[in-house]
Amino acid sequence: MAIRYPNGKKYSAPVNRSNPNKKETFGNRGMTLEEDLNDTNEYYLSRGIAVIHKKPTPLQIVQVDYPKRSAAVIKEAYFKQASTTDYNGVYRGRHIDFEAKETRNKTSFPLQNFHLHQIEHMKQVLDQQGICFIILRFTLLDEIYYLNAHHLIEYYEKQKDGRKSIPKAEIAQLGFLIEQEYHPRIDYLKVVDQLFFQK
Amino acid sequence: MAIRYPNGKKYSAPVNRSNPNKKETFGNRGMTLEEDLNDTNEYYLSRGIAVIHKKPTPLQIVQVDYPKRSAAVIKEAYFKQASTTDYNGVYRGRHIDFEAKETRNKTSFPLQNFHLHQIEHMKQVLDQQGICFIILRFTLLDEIYYLNAHHLIEYYEKQKDGRKSIPKAEIAQLGFLIEQEYHPRIDYLKVVDQLFFQK
Repeated sequence: MAIRYPNGKKYSAPVNRSNPNKKETFGNRGMTLEEDLNDTNEYYLSRGIAVIHKKPTPLQIVQVDYPKRSAAVIKEAYFKQASTTDYNGVYRGRHIDFEAKETRNKTSFPLQNFHLHQIEHMKQVLDQQGICFIILRFTLLDEIYYLNAHHLIEYYEKQKDGRKSIPKAEIAQLGFLIEQEYHPRIDYLKVVDQLFFQK
Repeated sequence: MAIRYPNGKKYSAPVNRSNPNKKETFGNRGMTLEEDLNDTNEYYLSRGIAVIHKKPTPLQIVQVDYPKRSAAVIKEAYFKQASTTDYNGVYRGRHIDFEAKETRNKTSFPLQNFHLHQIEHMKQVLDQQGICFIILRFTLLDEIYYLNAHHLIEYYEKQKDGRKSIPKAEIAQLGFLIEQEYHPRIDYLKVVDQLFFQK
């Protein structure tokens, strides 16, 4: 069952969104990127490695009923566009902030996956010396990359020059391929360690 | 219009929740604590001081309609208990994480305002060297205090000894009274500066 955002993009509850067409790997057995990241974050949390959570989907609540002796029921609400990234938390004293997106495109990552509010937010986080990045999955290739936010910001702002996507080759060059494993599935903190804690 | 959480606590949209009975001060002209904090965080954000946001209210979405050529409408959803604190972000490279609560009680702050998940979360954030605290408003006295999370955790765990609240006198002693002003209304980062950046 698909839920459409105001912008027409689909929203699906993780449980409803397995994708049997994907090839079998450790990291990806028909799981969505969100499921894999939630699993990874639970792994980090349960082992005291990091405290990183996905933010709830922002909704505009319009009407609510209050049945006697039972929980309130929201009868009318709408999806709101998030003004920040989806994931944040704390790791070894540093603030972690990132957005995760998937594409079925094989050669480049469309910038339309990100909106201006998120780009502005990433700039603000970087200005406060937070660690800010994006995690990109090329679904059909089953490849996941870590890319620091300042690269995304650059490409986003170059859009006016006409290029509406980031070529995969440049993501591979500027970013880091994340090996998918069983547990944790997407060990993105391994990249964070290399970049921010081993200098 | 009041919305009841599963636990029976009231939820109100900030706009519906002015409280004309409160006495007039700079910080508090019938505003809720949430409104004052959102205003304060906007102040911090607009001036590049800090990037701190309130998390959206977590909801369990059950049913959604998709009218043609218009936005998806959520027809059935329920409030979920938050597993983290309401506010977090980044300030001068440090991770900021806090919860804000109000009481009409004049002599002590009832611990029932916090639930186990939030206490566990605060411990986890402190373990990762995040800056974690609570902001408490005594509504009828119009006094707002900053209290570091480790104090709350102590009192929360002492509940089994029978005391279900934190005496106001001890909050005043262990915490910090936040002067309410016009802009920003609740300048809690002033306390954070004293405690974490002026050593």
